[in-house]
This record gives sequence, C-alpha cells and structure tokens, in this order.
Amino acid sequence: MSDTVPRGFRLAGVHCGIKRNPNKPDLTLVVSDVPAAAAGTYTQNLVFAAPVGLNRSRTPGSGFRAVVVNSGNANACTGEQGDRDARQMAAWAAAVCGAQPEQALVMSTGVIGEYLPMDKIRAGIEAAARQLAADDAALLAAARGLMTTDSTHKLCCRQQSIGSREVRIAGLAKGAAMIGPHMATMLGLILTDAPLPPSTAQHLLAAAVEETFNCISVDGHMSTNDTVLLLANGAAGGAALSGTELDAFSALLGDVCGELARAIPADGEGATHLITIHVRGCADRQGARRIAKTVAESPLVKTAIAGGDPNWGRIVSAAGYAGVAFDPHKVSLHLNGTLLYRQGTPVPFDEAAVSQSIRSQRDVQIDLEFGEGQAALRFWTTDLTAEYVRLNADYRT
Amino acid sequence: MSDTVPRGFRLAGVHCGIKRNPNKPDLTLVVSDVPAAAAGTYTQNLVFAAPVGLNRSRTPGSGFRAVVVNSGNANACTGEQGDRDARQMAAWAAAVCGAQPEQALVMSTGVIGEYLPMDKIRAGIEAAARQLAADDAALLAAARGLMTTDSTHKLCCRQQSIGSREVRIAGLAKGAAMIGPHMATMLGLILTDAPLPPSTAQHLLAAAVEETFNCISVDGHMSTNDTVLLLANGAAGGAALSGTELDAFSALLGDVCGELARAIPADGEGATHLITIHVRGCADRQGARRIAKTVAESPLVKTAIAGGDPNWGRIVSAAGYAGVAFDPHKVSLHLNGTLLYRQGTPVPFDEAAVSQSIRSQRDVQIDLEFGEGQAALRFWTTDLTAEYVRLNADYRT
Repeated sequence: MSDTVPRGFRLAGVHCGIKRNPNKPDLTLVVSDVPAAAAGTYTQNLVFAAPVGLNRSRTPGSGFRAVVVNSGNANACTGEQGDRDARQMAAWAAAVCGAQPEQALVMSTGVIGEYLPMDKIRAGIEAAARQLAADDAALLAAARGLMTTDSTHKLCCRQQSIGSREVRIAGLAKGAAMIGPHMATMLGLILTDAPLPPSTAQHLLAAAVEETFNCISVDGHMSTNDTVLLLANGAAGGAALSGTELDAFSALLGDVCGELARAIPADGEGATHLITIHVRGCADRQGARRIAKTVAESPLVKTAIAGGDPNWGRIVSAAGYAGVAFDPHKVSLHLNGTLLYRQGTPVPFDEAAVSQSIRSQRDVQIDLEFGEGQAALRFWTTDLTAEYVRLNADYRT
Repeated sequence: MSDTVPRGFRLAGVHCGIKRNPNKPDLTLVVSDVPAAAAGTYTQNLVFAAPVGLNRSRTPGSGFRAVVVNSGNANACTGEQGDRDARQMAAWAAAVCGAQPEQALVMSTGVIGEYLPMDKIRAGIEAAARQLAADDAALLAAARGLMTTDSTHKLCCRQQSIGSREVRIAGLAKGAAMIGPHMATMLGLILTDAPLPPSTAQHLLAAAVEETFNCISVDGHMSTNDTVLLLANGAAGGAALSGTELDAFSALLGDVCGELARAIPADGEGATHLITIHVRGCADRQGARRIAKTVAESPLVKTAIAGGDPNWGRIVSAAGYAGVAFDPHKVSLHLNGTLLYRQGTPVPFDEAAVSQSIRSQRDVQIDLEFGEGQAALRFWTTDLTAEYVRLNADYRT
C-alpha cells in the first residue's frame, strides 16, 4: 500500500496495442472501491471528441466507480460510431468492477479521425483490471498510460491534515500542450479521498482549472479532447468538507493543478524555455487573460525568446492587438527583472546582459503592467524553435 | 515618361543611411504635381506607430502633395519625440515640393523602439527630391525604398479606359507579412490619376482592403505600422468618377490590392507554400473571416502543410475553436481538391496522392464548407518552416 494514493482508489496502466511500441502503456484504468463524486472541465472546441461528449453528459454527478483512458487514438471526428465506441468503452470499464455502464467515465487522446480498435480496448481493460493496485508502481503505470508525445509522465501527489482527517490528492496529467504530431491533447485526472458532493467538486475544479490549466499554451491550438476530471470518493472519512476545511482543500487542489499545468508547457515539444507571463494592473481578469494569451501565442515573441533576443517591441505590440482596451502611455515591461519600457517610452538597458540572462536559464519572466486596474494573471508558455516545426511537419513523412 | 506611372506623380527611392547596406534604398519620396485626395487604412493595434497617428489625423482629406516613407526604423513605441519626428519628416517632404507642412503624409517600417536618425532623414528627402521622375526606373526605386526583409519588391500597375478617360493605378507594397526579424510590417501605397473626392476614395479603399490586405496572414502578429494609402490626383482629367465609372474603378482598385496582398504571404519568411483558404457557407462574413484566420494561424496546420501532411483533423479542429457557432455535423473539407471530410465524418482517401500534391507545388488549396448560410471568404497564408524560426530567433545574435 502506498501512502500517496488516495484511499479507496486502485490504478493500472497497460499496453493494449494502440501504440506500436509494446513498452509504452496506452490504456489506464482507475477504479474507486466506493462510489465517487465526479466533476469535469472540457474543451470549448465545437469539434469535440466522443468521450468529451459522454463525460459532459455525466458530470457533475455521483456514484462513479471507474475511469478508463486510452492514448494513441483521440476518438475525435469519428461521427456516431465514435459516440457508440465511447459508451461501450465506459461500459466495459464499469463491468470489470461490477458497476453499471453509466458509473464510468472515459478519456481518449491521440490521432484524430480514426475509429478506436475496440477489440484491443476490451482486452486492455480486462488486462488492466487484473493488475489494479494502490501502490506507487501502479500510480506511475497509470500516469504513463496517458502519455502520447510527452517526454515524461506528469504526476503530483499531496496529503494534508484537514480538520480531523488526513486528505490525499493524486493528480495525473498528459500533454506536450496540444502540440503533439498526432494532435496530442491535454488530459488531467485528479483523485482524492476527500468527501465532496458533486456540485462542490465541480465548483472547486472549475475554479482551480481557471487559474491553472486555462492559463497555459504552447501553440494556441485548442484540442478536441481536453479534459480534466476530479474524482472524490470520501474514503478519508467523515462528513463532506465545509467552511475552512473546504478552503484548505481548495488551496491544495489549486496547488496540484498548478504543478501539473506548469509541467505541460515545461515539456512543450522542441521548447528550450518555459516563459512565465505576469500581467498586472488590468481592468478585469478576462482582459488580463486575453493579453497574456496573445503575447504567449505570438510566434515573434516566442522566436525572440528562443534566440535569446530581448526584443521588447514584439511583446508590447502583441499586447496592443489583444482586443483589450488600454492606454499605451501607461504600459511598462520588465524582462527577467530588467525594466525595458516605462509608461510608453523605451528605457536604455544593457542588451547583452538581458540576452545572457535569457540564454543562461530555462525560465524566462515577462512582466507587463497596465495601470488600468487591479486584475492580474499568471500564464505559462514555451518558446518556438525549429525543432517544434520539425516535429510537427515530419509526422507521417 | 512611363506609360505606367499615373499622370502627375513623380517618385524616387534613395539610400540615406538607415540601413547599413548602401545598395539598399531606405527612403522613398512620392510627389503629386497637383493636389491629390488621400484615403488611408491603418493598423488596429492600440500600440500604433507615430506616422500612423499622424496620417490617421489627416485622412481622408484633399490637397496632398507628398508622401515620404522610410524603411529600417518603424518610429513605433517612441513616445512624444516620435510624434514630433513624424511631423517634422512630413514637413520636410512638403517643403521640397513647395507645399505646406500638413500637405504631406508619412510612413515608417522597421525596428520598433528606436528614434529616427533625423539628420539622415532630412538629407535623404533632399536627395530624393533631386531625383524625382515619372519613369519606370523611379517607380522601381520607390518600391525598393519600402522593403525591409522582403526578398523582392512588390509593384502592381494597371491602366484602363473608364468612360472617356484612360485611368492609371500604380500600387507599391512591402511586407514579408509582419514576420520580419525587425518586426517588419505591411505598407501599401496606391497612386491613381483618377479624379476622386476624399470620401469616395476612403470608401473605395476601405472596401478593397477589407477583401485583400485584411485577408492575409503569416504569423498573426498585427504590427504597429500597417498602413495602406490611396492618393488620387485627378490628372487623368474630367469630373469626379461616378456611377458605372466608379464601379469600374473600384474593380480595378480591388484587382491591384489583391495582387499586392497576395504577394506578401507569397514572400513570407521561410515559407515554402502559399495557402489559399476558401471558407464557404457561413452565416455571415465576419464569422467566415474568423474561421479562415484561425485555420491560417494554427501552427499545427501550417507545419502539416510544410511537411506535406494531409492532416485534416488539425484543420477541422482549428475551425472548431474560432469562436464562431456552427454545427460540426455539417462541416466538409477539401484539400487540394480532394474530399477528406464530409458532413462531420471522415472520408477514405489516397493519402499518398494528396501528400504528393502538396509536395509538388507551391500553392495549396483548403476549402471548408459549413452549410450554415451564404457568406464566403478567401484568405491567404503561408506554411511554417524551421527557416522562419531561424530567421526570427537569430535576429541580433
């Protein structure tokens, strides 16, 4: 028994043959021994995958016993057959733990536009059911079963005393940030033994995702499959969390989501820098997000950072076309702590020193101040390198 | 005398020392011997360059005698000194043809955040004034004076009998589509000897730009300096165009703007393909534009084309996050004329043949049909190559 896996959960990750390499797990099964509340947040893409549609219809809700995930095939743009396959996959996962078909959720990630190999999926679920365990090795195998072009698995576990209980959270995620050559996508699965009603779980998850998974980008291409699920089975004991206990849990959940979210651009394809953009002094948070996202997705900003070039004009001009009203004469910019632009006017600076500070470390800090209000936001993105282009151009070739 | 330069205009392009290479012109002067009406369309970026602010305050209007353009320095993010410099530059251009300071317009393109070298600008304007001519060599020199990272000048001339007059249009443009390592931008200067009042000129220019220059993209980074000016000096003679004459002129203007606009992504930095996206069957034109622009700017779509990969899931999923409502079950997609996706369902196709069709030619056709209405739009963009990244990362390094 692990002291990190939340109580009442068992996991497994197996290779069922969707991926060619037999050493790479491509199917993950998570079972809760007792019924769990589940909450979900999903892609806003109109072209969404079949499992997204299924989960969206079932969450928030309670009574869940299983989540099954496959990698290597997104089950997206697959029409009505895709919908049937997603339902069948969930039903098989429910069956192996003696639950009803609607007591399971399903996630898929990988190639778009191909039908799931259902024979392999069925055999994989049955094999995974035989290997379910609550130890660290099972947790690791489950995290690896989500991976596509990720260079490493993404896991984050926390435990904390909340009131009279010790609560655990385990988070599993995947994603080289929607930039995989197979249109890899972002998936997150958060398990906790804290007792939470579905509506509370949904509220907490939405708030945490808003600050974390919704504040990352690699290439701005929103996928068809993005999903974050939270399962809360209450095995830590006691009544549903409330009041200050809920606040403590919410902070812990935010911490887990933040660490997993940051790990995605940190593993961005071809990336040589993880860029943290702080936008401050905006009239509202939505505007701060649009500005951060526009700067984060400008190929000119991203290539400048890749080249160690403190080309601040690209950053300021990207903010200017974000579609958010502000007074350009009140804008200031710091790059890696050096003031480059103050209230709309260039500031002389040591270009070689700032360039060296970019080249010498993987982390880059962009700080934009607008002087329009109190709203602020943190956003994570990557630089853009020739290696990213090669990885995404050379798929199938 | 050229029979292509619109009557009453003289031009020159000289090297005044903003660019290091003495063989590259960096200052263009255009003079109209008689006062001309002028119309302008400008960047929507909140962080706009000083010359944009100046021109915006003066157009549409009449009585213009000169336009001066410098390349190599954008005069953007330069505060109040930048505004003074732009006004001074226009005043010098007006002075050399005996006009008042407010009878000139000014454009700048190049590096952001540096002050203009005013001594060089003044000497350049005086040198250009001595070389003004109405022949093809002067037209070419003027077009070259606009270039930054462009690999070729961009010129388009037309003449046509409209009613009892022969009307000429000459269009000069620059831009490797806002993707230059110096934050190069898009500039266009259209000269005509047709007689047009300022308000008509503005209306015709805005309509033409909407269909052409506003339907191109390389990297989606809207510049601080984008400007298209139309000067109409009436030297073709007669009263202002009206009725069917105006319709004929409008078509001619659209033709010139279209050819110049297409030339920009066709010269996109590092690009190996010019991609034409046709979006059809949308509820409205604004929605069609958002979808086309979103597909055009997805790094995953652009790298797929660069790699000769008919990865249609990337195209369909990009449309899905454009923020435009549509029914995914009614979407169809052709790539280079081959149907890949019909009404929300994949269509089996010869992948090798479609890949070969992408690899074997520079032009690529993406046709998206939505079945929601009658609005349609044509959009031009480039692929994304490792060479683009190298060009933009290695600036200053």
